[in-house]
Amino acid sequence: MVSEGLIDKIEAVRRVPAGQLDQLLHPIIDPSIRATPLCLGLPASPGAASGRAVFDPDTAEQRAHAGESVILVRDETTPEDFHGIVAARAVLTARGGMTSHAAVVARGMGKCAVVGCKELEVDLEHRSFNVNGTVVAEGDWLTLDGATGRVFAGDLSTIPSEVVRVTSGTMSPSQAPLYQSYSELLGWADEVRRLRVRANADTPRDARIARSFGAEGIGLCRTEHMFFEGDRITAMREMIVAREEGGRRRALNKLLPMQRADFEGIFEAMDGLPVTIRLLDPPLHEFLPHGGEETKLLARTLDIPRADLNRIIESLRETNPMLGHRGCRLGISYPEITEMQGRAILEAAVRAMRRGIVVKPEIMIPLVSTVKEFDNQRAVIEDVANRVLGGMGEKISYLIGTMIELPRAALTAAQIAQSAEFFSFGTNDLTQTTLGLSRDDAGRFLPSYIERGILADDPFQVLDTEGVGRLVRIAVEDGRRVRPKLKVGICGEHGGEPRSISFCHSLGLDYVSCSPFRVPIARLAAAHAALNA
Amino acid sequence: MVSEGLIDKIEAVRRVPAGQLDQLLHPIIDPSIRATPLCLGLPASPGAASGRAVFDPDTAEQRAHAGESVILVRDETTPEDFHGIVAARAVLTARGGMTSHAAVVARGMGKCAVVGCKELEVDLEHRSFNVNGTVVAEGDWLTLDGATGRVFAGDLSTIPSEVVRVTSGTMSPSQAPLYQSYSELLGWADEVRRLRVRANADTPRDARIARSFGAEGIGLCRTEHMFFEGDRITAMREMIVAREEGGRRRALNKLLPMQRADFEGIFEAMDGLPVTIRLLDPPLHEFLPHGGEETKLLARTLDIPRADLNRIIESLRETNPMLGHRGCRLGISYPEITEMQGRAILEAAVRAMRRGIVVKPEIMIPLVSTVKEFDNQRAVIEDVANRVLGGMGEKISYLIGTMIELPRAALTAAQIAQSAEFFSFGTNDLTQTTLGLSRDDAGRFLPSYIERGILADDPFQVLDTEGVGRLVRIAVEDGRRVRPKLKVGICGEHGGEPRSISFCHSLGLDYVSCSPFRVPIARLAAAHAALNA
Repeated sequence: MVSEGLIDKIEAVRRVPAGQLDQLLHPIIDPSIRATPLCLGLPASPGAASGRAVFDPDTAEQRAHAGESVILVRDETTPEDFHGIVAARAVLTARGGMTSHAAVVARGMGKCAVVGCKELEVDLEHRSFNVNGTVVAEGDWLTLDGATGRVFAGDLSTIPSEVVRVTSGTMSPSQAPLYQSYSELLGWADEVRRLRVRANADTPRDARIARSFGAEGIGLCRTEHMFFEGDRITAMREMIVAREEGGRRRALNKLLPMQRADFEGIFEAMDGLPVTIRLLDPPLHEFLPHGGEETKLLARTLDIPRADLNRIIESLRETNPMLGHRGCRLGISYPEITEMQGRAILEAAVRAMRRGIVVKPEIMIPLVSTVKEFDNQRAVIEDVANRVLGGMGEKISYLIGTMIELPRAALTAAQIAQSAEFFSFGTNDLTQTTLGLSRDDAGRFLPSYIERGILADDPFQVLDTEGVGRLVRIAVEDGRRVRPKLKVGICGEHGGEPRSISFCHSLGLDYVSCSPFRVPIARLAAAHAALNA
Repeated sequence: MVSEGLIDKIEAVRRVPAGQLDQLLHPIIDPSIRATPLCLGLPASPGAASGRAVFDPDTAEQRAHAGESVILVRDETTPEDFHGIVAARAVLTARGGMTSHAAVVARGMGKCAVVGCKELEVDLEHRSFNVNGTVVAEGDWLTLDGATGRVFAGDLSTIPSEVVRVTSGTMSPSQAPLYQSYSELLGWADEVRRLRVRANADTPRDARIARSFGAEGIGLCRTEHMFFEGDRITAMREMIVAREEGGRRRALNKLLPMQRADFEGIFEAMDGLPVTIRLLDPPLHEFLPHGGEETKLLARTLDIPRADLNRIIESLRETNPMLGHRGCRLGISYPEITEMQGRAILEAAVRAMRRGIVVKPEIMIPLVSTVKEFDNQRAVIEDVANRVLGGMGEKISYLIGTMIELPRAALTAAQIAQSAEFFSFGTNDLTQTTLGLSRDDAGRFLPSYIERGILADDPFQVLDTEGVGRLVRIAVEDGRRVRPKLKVGICGEHGGEPRSISFCHSLGLDYVSCSPFRVPIARLAAAHAALNA
């Protein structure tokens, strides 16, 4: 219509709902196929995908490495399934809601997921599942439609998104009219918007995808995801079970080159753009094995008595891990972890810089509740930075900032901003603490709350502007009062949700950061926010 | 000195540190006795007590009923030990900090406790403990000094506090010069202070003690403690494992007369004074058995297959129970619980009133995060109130208010105050959520935080005025803007801590509420706050 002179660019940007872009990015099941679904789950992450059913992450990885397409089927997933989700084309779970682990991780990867498919009974022993009498065994083909939550038996053909074929380089833009419209529209949106759009990406690959969608930096690189891949988890576990600093340092030395290589790859993918790297955040217990067999294996690998290992695992168990020994609390208890991570970031930055890459590292300290925690960790990072840069004879400008994810951090932002060079609102955790709502447990009552109108939206999807948003406002205002140039962004899942983006615009945030596949949505939503302001 | 004309009353009030009153209330070990302690733990709750060592709550209860003095020795305590703590003279634990379950419960009861006594190795199987080579078996005498954390073998004689002998009626005031000074001083303090002082009390007995210390009402009656006593836990468990409303109602009908009788007793003890009763708060999983033996017994009692029971227990397990399905979320999921509790309160109020007692019930809805939750529960209570009072042909004025214990409640206080007639700050939970700090888990790093000066005080003991306090201020100001006569108090443990009381005074709160044995301290601290304002 713009080319026909019927409406102008601004009007075109206005007319396209940001959420609709999602459809342009994910493959769909060929609409000409008629098939009856086996069952219906929650449409946790859009896209369509076919693959052979597998029931554990290791099998998923093995079969994927052998060139097969697989769909990981689990009762529910945990962080230990991470490599299986990476390897799988899609994820299907019997339990969990729209914000369950499987849903969140899959959305983060732009990977199809159907979760909370209640009729599905997983039989791990026989490596099969039963759904209303139909049994699907390991190796059988499945097709999922993540946009509608439908689960089909068999290998239904899917149509890849044209936009993705272009951005991933398998199709030329000139052959792709839909891509051209998409690209033109987003170009207009970019002219209008004030908010920058970054992506949450943990690996060089995700960073490249994010950039192909127009991300203007990384707003959140979660270093812990790097620790789950391959051998890394063993070194990580060795670090955790070490009883003294020496043992921890030995294990950390094994992790250092792996982290450094990842960071270098991310800096390369983001040449010229800022990259925010968050230091280790989750409680250590999450990295340890939970099953008897795996514990036995770990005890043998680390050559420690199994009883000792069990005792250590037990001692790290927490009543409320979300409110436990995690985030900067770990770095304060074990400064050698912060030191290793700071070293990996800065050494990677220097290496990348020497290859001509423009690096803009932003080091983010998580779960700060008082400026003294921040100052403690900042001192550790500055110390290692001086040693690394001094030793390598280089200068690199980097920022040290914090994630605002606890109410107290927002309430004492004026103090924290005296030390921190940027704030990034971790609105996932800030929502959990402000509402006193565990994302892992809320499934028991949250759906009925939304159904009855007690909550208008799932606060993990749409930012709760009255509660969480008020804290964000307090922190932005108080923080900028003491540091007018304070860089402020948001990196919770809300960073990719149109209404939340509009709120971020109204507060004067510098950027939003979201999953790579939501970057186009965020670009358009940011334009809408600017137009409606 | 006042009687000698050297100083005036005000100066006398000023000169006595509020914390010092604690010594006047608890018995001490006869200072003339020379003995070497077995070991040293944390002085969790002052007082001195002797008794025979027992290793489980049931034995504690049995031997106490048989007239013996017992000391409950546990690795650490859980809510299921409650009746054992009630029965015991004192509590000794090997694990846990100053805010562990044992410490908090014992302080609440004004009962001596020594916790976190690391050298103590409890051998449950042999019903004994070993401390540095000395073995103490079940039935052996122990003496604890909760003011210093010392643990002695044997039955050392203790000196009861004169004040307590008078307030409990076993000594005449005229024979008690120390009591007279105490009483006179607090009388002067009462003339000066503006803050009212209430007590947290869950039973008629605690309410009477509280009143004898000068409590001007109950600020927090935790109804769940009533559910742990005797047979009640069985009815409670029956309610929890019921699959449908009918089963829950049958079990609730068994609990109704027990709750009603307790409430009537409390109203009687508090004749003429307000009593704030909090509806069921903790997650249901806390009421279920955890051990195999106990589960087996429960399955038999309730006549359901053990596998089913295990499945129900497992399904109620939460990753972060503190942020889970609890508080008003339970009452919204199962309105019949709220209905039973509302009925018990109002029927008790009518029965007490008919006996000439002046009742002032204040019904408190816990863990509200949005006014819609509050309105939902208020409607349930008002409905049952109309039925009860209509059926009994009586009128009773009662208030319905809420506990402000989540940041979002404080941040949306202007909305909540439109419906709620009072606010009571539950600063224990508000501290947990505002700081993202689990009271059960913080022991791993909180002590080192205080040691290094990252936190000036334990935020569970001294109110964090900058973070939590800012939320309290926001809620008071916003709440009173829409409801100028909003009654506002605090019922966290901070309500008995002098510096926190001073802060509450400065915010214009109406009252503080604390453990019965801290009421005199709060009265004096409130006077200091008024004098220093």
